[in-house]
Amino acid sequence: MQSDSRGYRRYWDQERETMDPRQRDKLILARIKAQLTYVYQELPFYRDHYDAHGFKPDDVKTIEDFTAKVPVITKKMLVADQLLNPPFGSYAGNHSPDGLARIHGSSGTSGTPTMYCVSHKDWERSRELVALAMWAMGARPCDIAQIGFPFSLFFGGWGVLQGLEHIGVTTFPLGNIDSERHLDLMYRIGSTIFSATPSYCQHLTTVAERMGLDLADSPVQRLIVGGEPGGSLPGTRDVISKAWGASVHDSGSTSEMYPFNTNVTAVPEDGVLLINDEVFTEVVDRDNANVALPHGERGAIVYTHLWRESQPMIRFWPGDETYMVHDGPTSCGRTYPRLPEGVIGRLDDMLIIRGANIYPSAVETVLRQVDGLGPEFEILVDKRGSMDEITVRVELTETRARELENSPADARQQIAKDVEHRLKGALQIRVPVELISPGTLEPTVLKARRVVDRRNLANT
Amino acid sequence: MQSDSRGYRRYWDQERETMDPRQRDKLILARIKAQLTYVYQELPFYRDHYDAHGFKPDDVKTIEDFTAKVPVITKKMLVADQLLNPPFGSYAGNHSPDGLARIHGSSGTSGTPTMYCVSHKDWERSRELVALAMWAMGARPCDIAQIGFPFSLFFGGWGVLQGLEHIGVTTFPLGNIDSERHLDLMYRIGSTIFSATPSYCQHLTTVAERMGLDLADSPVQRLIVGGEPGGSLPGTRDVISKAWGASVHDSGSTSEMYPFNTNVTAVPEDGVLLINDEVFTEVVDRDNANVALPHGERGAIVYTHLWRESQPMIRFWPGDETYMVHDGPTSCGRTYPRLPEGVIGRLDDMLIIRGANIYPSAVETVLRQVDGLGPEFEILVDKRGSMDEITVRVELTETRARELENSPADARQQIAKDVEHRLKGALQIRVPVELISPGTLEPTVLKARRVVDRRNLANT
Repeated sequence: MQSDSRGYRRYWDQERETMDPRQRDKLILARIKAQLTYVYQELPFYRDHYDAHGFKPDDVKTIEDFTAKVPVITKKMLVADQLLNPPFGSYAGNHSPDGLARIHGSSGTSGTPTMYCVSHKDWERSRELVALAMWAMGARPCDIAQIGFPFSLFFGGWGVLQGLEHIGVTTFPLGNIDSERHLDLMYRIGSTIFSATPSYCQHLTTVAERMGLDLADSPVQRLIVGGEPGGSLPGTRDVISKAWGASVHDSGSTSEMYPFNTNVTAVPEDGVLLINDEVFTEVVDRDNANVALPHGERGAIVYTHLWRESQPMIRFWPGDETYMVHDGPTSCGRTYPRLPEGVIGRLDDMLIIRGANIYPSAVETVLRQVDGLGPEFEILVDKRGSMDEITVRVELTETRARELENSPADARQQIAKDVEHRLKGALQIRVPVELISPGTLEPTVLKARRVVDRRNLANT
Repeated sequence: MQSDSRGYRRYWDQERETMDPRQRDKLILARIKAQLTYVYQELPFYRDHYDAHGFKPDDVKTIEDFTAKVPVITKKMLVADQLLNPPFGSYAGNHSPDGLARIHGSSGTSGTPTMYCVSHKDWERSRELVALAMWAMGARPCDIAQIGFPFSLFFGGWGVLQGLEHIGVTTFPLGNIDSERHLDLMYRIGSTIFSATPSYCQHLTTVAERMGLDLADSPVQRLIVGGEPGGSLPGTRDVISKAWGASVHDSGSTSEMYPFNTNVTAVPEDGVLLINDEVFTEVVDRDNANVALPHGERGAIVYTHLWRESQPMIRFWPGDETYMVHDGPTSCGRTYPRLPEGVIGRLDDMLIIRGANIYPSAVETVLRQVDGLGPEFEILVDKRGSMDEITVRVELTETRARELENSPADARQQIAKDVEHRLKGALQIRVPVELISPGTLEPTVLKARRVVDRRNLANT
């Protein structure tokens, strides 16, 4: 058996992770058929949806049929069904308390949360799956993992914890406590893994600087990040990786798929592996979910639980954009397909500015390449006449802001011009940039909110 | 096998829980000897302490010897040892990351937290022990348990979660979220167990009233409370039990003993059972920890981990006061000793007012017997000349405060006089009472802080 540099075995489940993809596809097809039969027979939500589309489980004979014939489901449909069939929806299966292990919900702070339930069988299965995922991201029994995701209604951190515990990693689950305390405890305990959103990891670099700490000297060797795209945006990943002196591992898909976290970064340069024998993942035409896209082409991602019995998602369309490749074993030897840039962003987040498609993630990638800019920025969207226009406001780091106080007046302008020039290169349009003092924007402690939409405000 | 009213077996581990106490004492003595040998040989903290007292493990031949000969340890000693031997102290045993499952710490928000570590072996053992404890408190696989303890550095809620999961209870671990959201989700999901501090359970009754909800109609049938004494104070317990229409089960000792939660309320009227074959528990003279007290007499509690290998506490003196009885099987058939009123309070919290020993818990017990008083109160301690004096400030409920607005001026005075009269009866001294408007004091969301010490302030 192959072993890694720390003397542990290389794979959590070698046979599964290095299987010939053609053989794996047979298993996937068998599970697709089993799940379609289960959800059609047992879950009214799916039966009604499929009947309305004239679809029958027997129509699927191949994986290609699955993409071409099965109608997708959306968040909106799930919300509507939960309203009619509280608390878990008619897609939940048997949700007597005897059958359930966990209840969680969407983290939205306003309105009615979407409720998630996980059966005992699914919770046991996810324990093994997330261990496989965390092992692929390098977690080992000799690690100490400090977890900065909140432990509450939001499901994210709980799955991470479950998988790490199953591996035998020492877990230090702190949740969203004060940032200085996070850092103090990290050094005191010698945590080797830190897990949070990428924007919170960036925020901690600012806090560390204020405390006189250089995170590159911290005990942390590995950041397991998720909850937003940053961890796979090369610019952002490099900035975080350099600041922490640690490898950055993007992971996770959406709460609906949790705790089956099958988007996993083993080697950052390879992008995100898809454990597609657990969650079958497709990239399809954003205008027609029954049209598969060739590898490499950008479109909408669609997820399917191959084993889950409680609230299984079958062709769930979260509204995220990405592209997929499947070009033989990756550098870690696994034979799964991958998302070279992870999930790039939400389809809904795309802005159309003077005819150009602009994603907040593309702006972020540019900003991360410029020295002296802090982690926080925002994209203001305004309406000028019938056209949308954007302005990028980005904070300076505290160090750079101090330097600029003693510099010629046009030094500040020079930086703004440099950023504008780079944005023009990446986005093909001119975008005005405003440099602002550190601390102007709300620091990100969970998920970053980058777009500030002012189009519905009166404009002079 | 006997079964309970819901068709489940009555005990988690019948043989253990109903064992003849004389037979159990033999097992306890064997474990005491094994632990003394282990800590003396392996843990420098204990070896140095015992050497300094001229104590050798072989000196213990009986359980009585254990009380009479083994010097106690205190929180102060643990803190000093951790400072010298960071991060876990020289009483931690093998704390290589490979050996540890969990790291937690004291919840103190200022200064250096005390760090707790739990080995894999201990974490597995506590899983079984806490399941036994939670089963005794009535948790069953058909329950849905909503947990309001925070999931962070503080260890409390994590042990509760571990035990409930092992039983197969559906867990809904929310932590300390907004109170209205807690209640909204409780009704939406139909949670049958709620777990938090007793003062938070009281606080929720106020919030529920404001929302127009009557908690007596809530789905919750069982409150598992801990972290402070309230759950065993008969007055407080009755108020909470009546407001929620639920049984109140006090549980838990101190963070140093966690996750081995061996103080367990099966039948509220019996008080707190001590699972003393896991944590051997003594009540000793408050002025001499080597003098056992007869059953029924109030003194200081002392705890000993009989199995724990990581940071084992051997005769740990937390500074808590109580009394113990051991009068045959309790009404639930268990043969453990019990604390009829739980842990009564902290020895340090005792105030001496005009020669009388006054505990905050005794004041609380009186206040809970008076209709129209809200959950929040405080005891102001002042110095008048060389004497300490106290004043009790207690909030009215919102309903009562509204009623009093339309009542004769002396109605308010009548209530204050009634409370003063009852306090005089219970404490033997006159204590002035001030009624204040609801919302004046900070609502308790974790542990209540009742004593406000103003003795070091200048007094006119």
